[in-house]
Amino acid sequence: MPETDAALPGFEARLEDARTASFALAVATTAQRNSALHAVADHLRGAAHEVIAANARDLDTGRENGLTDGLLDRLALDGRRVEALAAAVEQIASLTDPVGEVVRGSTLPNGVRISQVRVPFGVVGVIYEARPNVTVDIAALALKSGNAVVLRGGSAAENSNRALVGLIQDALQSVGLPRTAVQTIDDFGRAGATALMQARGFVDVLIPRGSADLINTVVAESKVPVIETGAGVVHIFLDESAAQEWAVEIVHNAKTQRPSVCNTVETVLVHADAAERLLPSVLDRLAASGVTVHADERTRAIWPDATPATDEDWGTEYMSLDVTVGVVDSLDDAIGHIRRYSTKHTESIITNDLGNAERFLNEVDSAAVMVNASTRFTDGGEFGFGAEVGISTQKLHARGPMGLTELTSTKWIVRGDGQVRG
Amino acid sequence: MPETDAALPGFEARLEDARTASFALAVATTAQRNSALHAVADHLRGAAHEVIAANARDLDTGRENGLTDGLLDRLALDGRRVEALAAAVEQIASLTDPVGEVVRGSTLPNGVRISQVRVPFGVVGVIYEARPNVTVDIAALALKSGNAVVLRGGSAAENSNRALVGLIQDALQSVGLPRTAVQTIDDFGRAGATALMQARGFVDVLIPRGSADLINTVVAESKVPVIETGAGVVHIFLDESAAQEWAVEIVHNAKTQRPSVCNTVETVLVHADAAERLLPSVLDRLAASGVTVHADERTRAIWPDATPATDEDWGTEYMSLDVTVGVVDSLDDAIGHIRRYSTKHTESIITNDLGNAERFLNEVDSAAVMVNASTRFTDGGEFGFGAEVGISTQKLHARGPMGLTELTSTKWIVRGDGQVRG
Repeated sequence: MPETDAALPGFEARLEDARTASFALAVATTAQRNSALHAVADHLRGAAHEVIAANARDLDTGRENGLTDGLLDRLALDGRRVEALAAAVEQIASLTDPVGEVVRGSTLPNGVRISQVRVPFGVVGVIYEARPNVTVDIAALALKSGNAVVLRGGSAAENSNRALVGLIQDALQSVGLPRTAVQTIDDFGRAGATALMQARGFVDVLIPRGSADLINTVVAESKVPVIETGAGVVHIFLDESAAQEWAVEIVHNAKTQRPSVCNTVETVLVHADAAERLLPSVLDRLAASGVTVHADERTRAIWPDATPATDEDWGTEYMSLDVTVGVVDSLDDAIGHIRRYSTKHTESIITNDLGNAERFLNEVDSAAVMVNASTRFTDGGEFGFGAEVGISTQKLHARGPMGLTELTSTKWIVRGDGQVRG
Repeated sequence: MPETDAALPGFEARLEDARTASFALAVATTAQRNSALHAVADHLRGAAHEVIAANARDLDTGRENGLTDGLLDRLALDGRRVEALAAAVEQIASLTDPVGEVVRGSTLPNGVRISQVRVPFGVVGVIYEARPNVTVDIAALALKSGNAVVLRGGSAAENSNRALVGLIQDALQSVGLPRTAVQTIDDFGRAGATALMQARGFVDVLIPRGSADLINTVVAESKVPVIETGAGVVHIFLDESAAQEWAVEIVHNAKTQRPSVCNTVETVLVHADAAERLLPSVLDRLAASGVTVHADERTRAIWPDATPATDEDWGTEYMSLDVTVGVVDSLDDAIGHIRRYSTKHTESIITNDLGNAERFLNEVDSAAVMVNASTRFTDGGEFGFGAEVGISTQKLHARGPMGLTELTSTKWIVRGDGQVRG
């Protein structure tokens, strides 16, 4: 990265500091890392007024720049939200430490003992948008898993993030860990984000968190290995034998319980031989909750209130109270449709046919495949991970909800007493 | 990839065929995939003369183009080598199938059952150089793990690879699996390799096999997730308390048993307080086997036959009968040196000091860290994997020797009976 350093004086030194800090974290005990997290929670509570004051400056700038109410709300911190952040950090401290877990091991015929052990990645880079809670959340997850972290937040949250990183660094120092284990590169601006994506050898893994645009940019430009947390064009297939009550309640839950998140259903497919039996009750229930139904002609013949679906609708992640509905002639057609349009996040089949359930589970290639359950269950919290780094839709390293384990790598420990290879 | 398809008519269709074939492989049973491998072995034996004839054309072209004897030897196939390939395929067939392994699972409080199960990646891309044995090896590993594979071999082996891929496809067809599960894109030339690196969404993982240059190019240019199999600037540290016999025998084995591979030692560091005791016997033994010793001044003061080490020597992967030797004042200095120059492949400490052994294992951040053992043990065969895809020096997904398991991803299977999220 000599070019980078010429263009951005001080940038490489900051990454070097992160790497040096990662050595200290890698040998810190679980107790030391947990005490750092408790110190972070204490410092958050003790300096809440400073954080809120810094956040107020970001909110003022945001209003001047015409941010929408929704964006301002995501940016805003108040006493209640800071307390929630502190509590979340304490919750992360209480989780099982992934570092040191022995994944597998054996004694070779010659007496050499090998074991594969979980170790921190080293330095984790995170690029995210104007949500200051992510700053605390990801720093806590990184520290718990023994990683140093380099943060690049959205410029709209710059004052909030500076305040939060400062108090996290104070907390680290208070327990004898290096301040540089958590650093921001926001002061390098957009060029810093670009340089972070080029920092192969300095940063071990890069995690983008935010919009599909942000994630696609990082995936396309990064030379550092990326863990992609992806979008969800999520499908439910109502098979011929689907129980009506399950169809109605699962589709309703998957669409309306929290429509703005990635595991909410966006497309419902129904078997032609069940369409007349199921669609009226399924769609009436959705409409009663304010859902707009976009549907193909066969659906509209049964349920005329629907809006005609456009070609784009089938590939759209609405993240709103909209759903696309279509009739298919067979399980094969449903699987074919899902292969074409799915983002490989989560798909569920509602059925009472064991053979069809198994075929769906085996043949649909998504991070989570379900039978007779709401797609909203694809979630680190629901899966019992205690914390969620994101939901990976890629197949390398992590797939589906990512917990602390997914923030670790492994190393092989080999113990001999003089063995050589014959 | 519409641009790619305009530039390379037929390329995208071939990747689509691979994806379609991957669906068939993903649902094929272990027995079906094993029978495909046995058919490949049979076809290799039955068509050995055709393969050797195609290979002879590549060798003729290679001689005309002035390939070195070493490269010609790596390219050459004869009856014995074809038989060895067939036997290797049968050996891969005999390994445990990684597909379907349940990694973890639980029943959630609401009765939903979740399990994380190993599944094939889907389509694996491989870019490699002029070694036709890699064509068979990687195709067999991919088929065993349920993956379709798209191969881009070196142009110098084009005739050999076409013959080998053709007979593998015949073998697939003979057991009712799609021919397109194993395909070459060699006919698209260099542009095909570039397009393969851009084929995100069509190819699930890309594995470069070959020189450091090839690997660096793929890592830098690929938009598809890459598993990097890397170079090894491998270190052995002779601690103050190292047993002399172990020091002599382990260094000798690690340097001379097979100097051209990545797990051979390239740098030996010795503690200052053990240098006079250990260096003469360690270096005499190396020199007797024809090793050229490049050394720092402190080493040369003890063993004057050494060549002065240059700055570049410390970071060089010789892959030959050369070694760099230096004296350090402490374990900390040894770890610091390794952090600076290691490629994070394998490092070993020779010591009788338990505390130093544990510090070395914990603080050296390499894929394999060893105490009192030869670095030559970092190997899928030695580790008992039965087959080796390569040795990963990255931290994402796989680290160290990669077996069949590392050619799989996972998916979450979720089984409910009507549960919705509260």
